[in-house]
Amino acid sequence: MTALLSVSDKTNIIFFARELIAIGYEIISTGGTLKTLQEEGIEAIEVSSYTQSQEMFGGRVKTLHPRIAGGILYRRQNSEDVKIAKEYGIRDINLVCVNLYPFKQTIQRTDDFEEIIENIDIGGPTLLRAAAKNFQSVLVVSNPSDYDFIIEALKSHQNTLVLRQKMMIKAYEHTASYDVMIANYMNKTFKEGFGDMHFLAGKLVGKTRYGENPHQKGAYYEWEDFYSKNFKTLKGELSFNNLTDINSAVKIASNFGESKAVCIVKHGNPCGFAISDTLLDSYRQALRCDNISAYGGVVAVNGEVDLALAQEMGKIFFEVLVAPSITKEALEFLMPKKKLKIFLCGEGYLKLPKDAKNFKHIEGGFLLQESDEVLSDEVKNAQCMSIKKATNTQMQDLGIAYKIAALVKSNCVVYVKNRAMVAIGMGMTSRVDAAKAAIIKAKEMGIDLQGCVLASEAFFPFKDSIQEAYKAGVSAVIEPGGSVRDEEVIACANENNMALYFSHKRHFLH
Amino acid sequence: MTALLSVSDKTNIIFFARELIAIGYEIISTGGTLKTLQEEGIEAIEVSSYTQSQEMFGGRVKTLHPRIAGGILYRRQNSEDVKIAKEYGIRDINLVCVNLYPFKQTIQRTDDFEEIIENIDIGGPTLLRAAAKNFQSVLVVSNPSDYDFIIEALKSHQNTLVLRQKMMIKAYEHTASYDVMIANYMNKTFKEGFGDMHFLAGKLVGKTRYGENPHQKGAYYEWEDFYSKNFKTLKGELSFNNLTDINSAVKIASNFGESKAVCIVKHGNPCGFAISDTLLDSYRQALRCDNISAYGGVVAVNGEVDLALAQEMGKIFFEVLVAPSITKEALEFLMPKKKLKIFLCGEGYLKLPKDAKNFKHIEGGFLLQESDEVLSDEVKNAQCMSIKKATNTQMQDLGIAYKIAALVKSNCVVYVKNRAMVAIGMGMTSRVDAAKAAIIKAKEMGIDLQGCVLASEAFFPFKDSIQEAYKAGVSAVIEPGGSVRDEEVIACANENNMALYFSHKRHFLH
Repeated sequence: MTALLSVSDKTNIIFFARELIAIGYEIISTGGTLKTLQEEGIEAIEVSSYTQSQEMFGGRVKTLHPRIAGGILYRRQNSEDVKIAKEYGIRDINLVCVNLYPFKQTIQRTDDFEEIIENIDIGGPTLLRAAAKNFQSVLVVSNPSDYDFIIEALKSHQNTLVLRQKMMIKAYEHTASYDVMIANYMNKTFKEGFGDMHFLAGKLVGKTRYGENPHQKGAYYEWEDFYSKNFKTLKGELSFNNLTDINSAVKIASNFGESKAVCIVKHGNPCGFAISDTLLDSYRQALRCDNISAYGGVVAVNGEVDLALAQEMGKIFFEVLVAPSITKEALEFLMPKKKLKIFLCGEGYLKLPKDAKNFKHIEGGFLLQESDEVLSDEVKNAQCMSIKKATNTQMQDLGIAYKIAALVKSNCVVYVKNRAMVAIGMGMTSRVDAAKAAIIKAKEMGIDLQGCVLASEAFFPFKDSIQEAYKAGVSAVIEPGGSVRDEEVIACANENNMALYFSHKRHFLH
Repeated sequence: MTALLSVSDKTNIIFFARELIAIGYEIISTGGTLKTLQEEGIEAIEVSSYTQSQEMFGGRVKTLHPRIAGGILYRRQNSEDVKIAKEYGIRDINLVCVNLYPFKQTIQRTDDFEEIIENIDIGGPTLLRAAAKNFQSVLVVSNPSDYDFIIEALKSHQNTLVLRQKMMIKAYEHTASYDVMIANYMNKTFKEGFGDMHFLAGKLVGKTRYGENPHQKGAYYEWEDFYSKNFKTLKGELSFNNLTDINSAVKIASNFGESKAVCIVKHGNPCGFAISDTLLDSYRQALRCDNISAYGGVVAVNGEVDLALAQEMGKIFFEVLVAPSITKEALEFLMPKKKLKIFLCGEGYLKLPKDAKNFKHIEGGFLLQESDEVLSDEVKNAQCMSIKKATNTQMQDLGIAYKIAALVKSNCVVYVKNRAMVAIGMGMTSRVDAAKAAIIKAKEMGIDLQGCVLASEAFFPFKDSIQEAYKAGVSAVIEPGGSVRDEEVIACANENNMALYFSHKRHFLH
């Protein structure tokens, strides 16, 4: 039996080679791998001595040879192939262990294009792809983390077709993601990330019990290792819909730096948000906005959950609590709550990765765009369009309302008072309907909107929403501006002695 | 100059080879390509005569040879490499034209796994990847549709670094999508499409002027060629948000077979829908539901737009009209409308591709799930929970309301009367708020809800929505059921002499 070993990442290769030899394999190897093996006294045949063709061009050509390719690819069940292999002294290479030049690490480390190009592996993918194609007879190993279980399988005579098929899939996943990385890198470098093709390559984190609905299968995938390494489940099982809600809740709650923010999300939209001096108080105020929708929702807490907060939260049913940490006492208190799930995310404060681009599925393809972000000076530099100016307190509330509005489904309006969201309208086809629905809800909840501020993620097309806002007690408004009726809107604000700011930047989110 | 030609798709290869020879290239070629060239009397060197190594194993090993790999990969700017190349008689292969075994066509044609495996190309990707790596000196051509412009470039001495870089990107896009196809196929076959990795590979259809907002760059990508081939722009420029709205509007309007459905969408949700005996009447009724939100919306018409409909539509401002066809007169009438965009989609009736899976971006990755669908018997087989049964007319309306509700953002409620949507609540964190907002809106619009039916995409958690519905005049309700308070909900329906059906299937959409 012959194993071909040619690895860029040498992790555990010594162990793997020793075990292979113990099992009865002869090893063929190249350049760096061969050297590593020989230094440890492991016997291996040099590829060039087997191929009788020297390594050339600074290692660019090592394994691309018919005696290697043929030894992997020839059909063991085809007598003609077997005859030719024998005739040409081609070995039966039945195990191929290869990993590739570190293209990803290279582009993360340097901008030196020549070095980057040199780190595009040519021989490696060929070996992996050839071995995978012939998985009928060849076992392909493309990841050092598989060595242990492969050795176990070989020792217990479990080198089965099913095993080889599994490793074949891994190999093609590996070569696919390698070329995806190269193509995306080149497109990012030369075409701002909008190339003639765009690839999204996700690594499975886990399957969810089901998708958005019980009759749909679902799973979640990640680019790097955020969810598999930095997102911890303390209690309960993460569902598909939990993941979208958490994505929304954490983005909102972590949007205000280190402030003690709490956000409650339901169906992807916030129904509660507040920043106060303590997380407990933030939570209480967040809940006030709509304690009915909050039922069964996702609560994101931007700081450590202590016992007092846990006890307060325990009074109603939430499905999910997500926070950077939780005290032992708080966790103990919440553990008996049967349906509550608890997840940790971030360190000290909530944190999610921030993708430069996002995408949306449409039937037959997807839309790709640069991610949206509210810049730090967007509210500070907003233009005052009214006679009345906002006070500092109002300005702070406008900033909060505006940042939330950018993370709520359009059309949306967000009402904030003393750093707490007091009303919200979202996801509707009409902006004024959203504005009115929010006011009606606030009345039902017994919330006094007097003196609150209002943000809209896109312009008010008419003055009607401003009129409704004034009647409800809104004192200051921020919106992008840009309607053909801006003059009417400004006049309406002035008539009602309201402060009105234009940010000149829209934040639709659908 | 030497060009290596090895193509599975022989389209235009004769033209390309002749032109290359005329420019001064010598051609090296293999198996089928060589035969094709020779049959046309084109002179070419056989790879095996150049490598002095015969083609082996039924063509599995042809080009994997150091004299080929080296001839592509050696560094022309490195004197040592040049010396070695000379010493070993390695040619300067400076043009590589390769396309790959038709893996995709094979899996579309057959389930014969052996044949599928045989159609995984090993040599081809190696040649492409090697040539692309050395784009500094080598021109790589991976698509027959590029032959024309490559020949033009060579004739006019425009084989520049920029050209070779562009072709390098294309080559890696090609090999990346090839292995993506293989990996996804294997995962679909052996892991129901939820493999350890999942790849989405989109081909650029076009960039949009911007993304969801003007400060975001955007573009749209497709799997096959639906948008680039079957989606036609008659007037105006497709925007990012148009695409999501069209996706929603067409899915809803085409959801009822060949019926004369019209759907009006704003911000991804419908604000108007009707099926009537003529498209004109459907449009009029669809508009009635919310003619305010309809302003600037997307109208999807499930049939040919004629002059009468165009004239009626022309009375208010829409941003988009999408239909399978439009008469000459109708188009002429609409052409002067400055801001209106017109797109054709489908044939006879509206049609979009139907992806088996969909996905959602979350920061750091994505969620993947089987697509949702309302099955044809879902309403027919719904369980009557009330004493009162729905009439045939009500049953028809329930079916329409239920199918729309599955395509509206949760939480949603849809009210339908005589095949027209008469009210809708959507995208809100509370179901009863959505139910109430819809009723308030209908009142404002002067719509009488008496006798209408109501569908909800998920269960009513309390009887409150049913009470509100009864007060508004709703006569029959369909919902999945499944609340712990179902008994209360059923009792409430019975008290008010309403028909109530449970479908036992939820259709959340977020």
